[in-house]
Amino acid sequence: MSTPGNGQIPQATIERLPGYLRVLTDLADEGVARVSSNALAEAVHVQPALLRRDLSYFGSYGTRGVGYEVDTLMSEIGELVGTRTTWPVVIVGAGNLGRALARHGGLLHRGFQVVSMVDTDETRIGAEVGGIAVLPDAELEEIVRRTGARIAVLTTPAAAAQQAADRLIAQGVTSILNFAPITLEVPEGVTVRAVDLAQELQILAFHEAHRTEPVQ
Amino acid sequence: MSTPGNGQIPQATIERLPGYLRVLTDLADEGVARVSSNALAEAVHVQPALLRRDLSYFGSYGTRGVGYEVDTLMSEIGELVGTRTTWPVVIVGAGNLGRALARHGGLLHRGFQVVSMVDTDETRIGAEVGGIAVLPDAELEEIVRRTGARIAVLTTPAAAAQQAADRLIAQGVTSILNFAPITLEVPEGVTVRAVDLAQELQILAFHEAHRTEPVQ
Repeated sequence: MSTPGNGQIPQATIERLPGYLRVLTDLADEGVARVSSNALAEAVHVQPALLRRDLSYFGSYGTRGVGYEVDTLMSEIGELVGTRTTWPVVIVGAGNLGRALARHGGLLHRGFQVVSMVDTDETRIGAEVGGIAVLPDAELEEIVRRTGARIAVLTTPAAAAQQAADRLIAQGVTSILNFAPITLEVPEGVTVRAVDLAQELQILAFHEAHRTEPVQ
Repeated sequence: MSTPGNGQIPQATIERLPGYLRVLTDLADEGVARVSSNALAEAVHVQPALLRRDLSYFGSYGTRGVGYEVDTLMSEIGELVGTRTTWPVVIVGAGNLGRALARHGGLLHRGFQVVSMVDTDETRIGAEVGGIAVLPDAELEEIVRRTGARIAVLTTPAAAAQQAADRLIAQGVTSILNFAPITLEVPEGVTVRAVDLAQELQILAFHEAHRTEPVQ
């Protein structure tokens, strides 16, 4: 398998890889050994041509009439998305969203271990969530240093998010999953994925608004 | 303002509109009356040319040397994304994630009212979360009919999600925000937005993996 550098794989392809991996894992669990590109494309809801192009970026072309070996493809994509490693993850903010992540059964299976969760709220500190103790926010720096976490999740209120991000980055965190509804300012080289729950609903509302009341 | 139909606005533009709206709302709150396309583009982290193209899709061209009127643009985008209406939203699954949404302070401000939350777990039923009572899952159909909700959020385990979606759709729900880690099968005309938290982390891990161990 020839593997071009990260820079050569389009971001849109990278974003689809975890979806492919999820479907392949399901197929492997069901004992399926081979899958055609058409069947795989249908399961992940993309066009077959797009799937083939995505997989070709890292040298998986399948075999005409045979398709892809599920195990091989799963292991290739798994290696690419780093599931061979277990990534330590620190969560900032032990509200409902932080707790949902700490209790998320699927994370470990998919290569992530929540190693610590911090909060400023005294009433939350000391609680145990999904086997993780909620620690004081003041210990954040020490926790990142100790665990070597490079990936962090922000579930703080908007007003606290930038400062938390700055503190994480100062300790070497380079990937942040941000649920706070603000756009974080980060130095070059730090990757931020933003999930804004209200924004997701607004995109749906846009479709609803134009479904029931077509714009002139 | 000339407003082309939904079909003419690219999906990628639609997905950026809520971000524009968030920044404009912040500016209006700060008392800012006008904003240049460059300043607005920087605040939302897109290229100025892309911002201008996005806004031109619904006839907002700004004025050279003056920029955009914050209030006007906010109201135009707000109308497009349907924030003039308050959309009733039903949540299926009253776990941490469902509760995080029910307590989400920003939703109402952004056009959404969680009207009901259901769960199958007897220990959760009857609890009140963010002013919303958790009702028995068996009442889902009646709740959708009564509230007229067209937007629903699924925070159930993967195994329960498809059936919940089918039941919602049968009652007229046409937009689903799905947090369950499965790809829902829905009839044409139903819009699904999927947020898979593990998948978001995997995209970050991909970048991490290739940051620390560049692929050959």
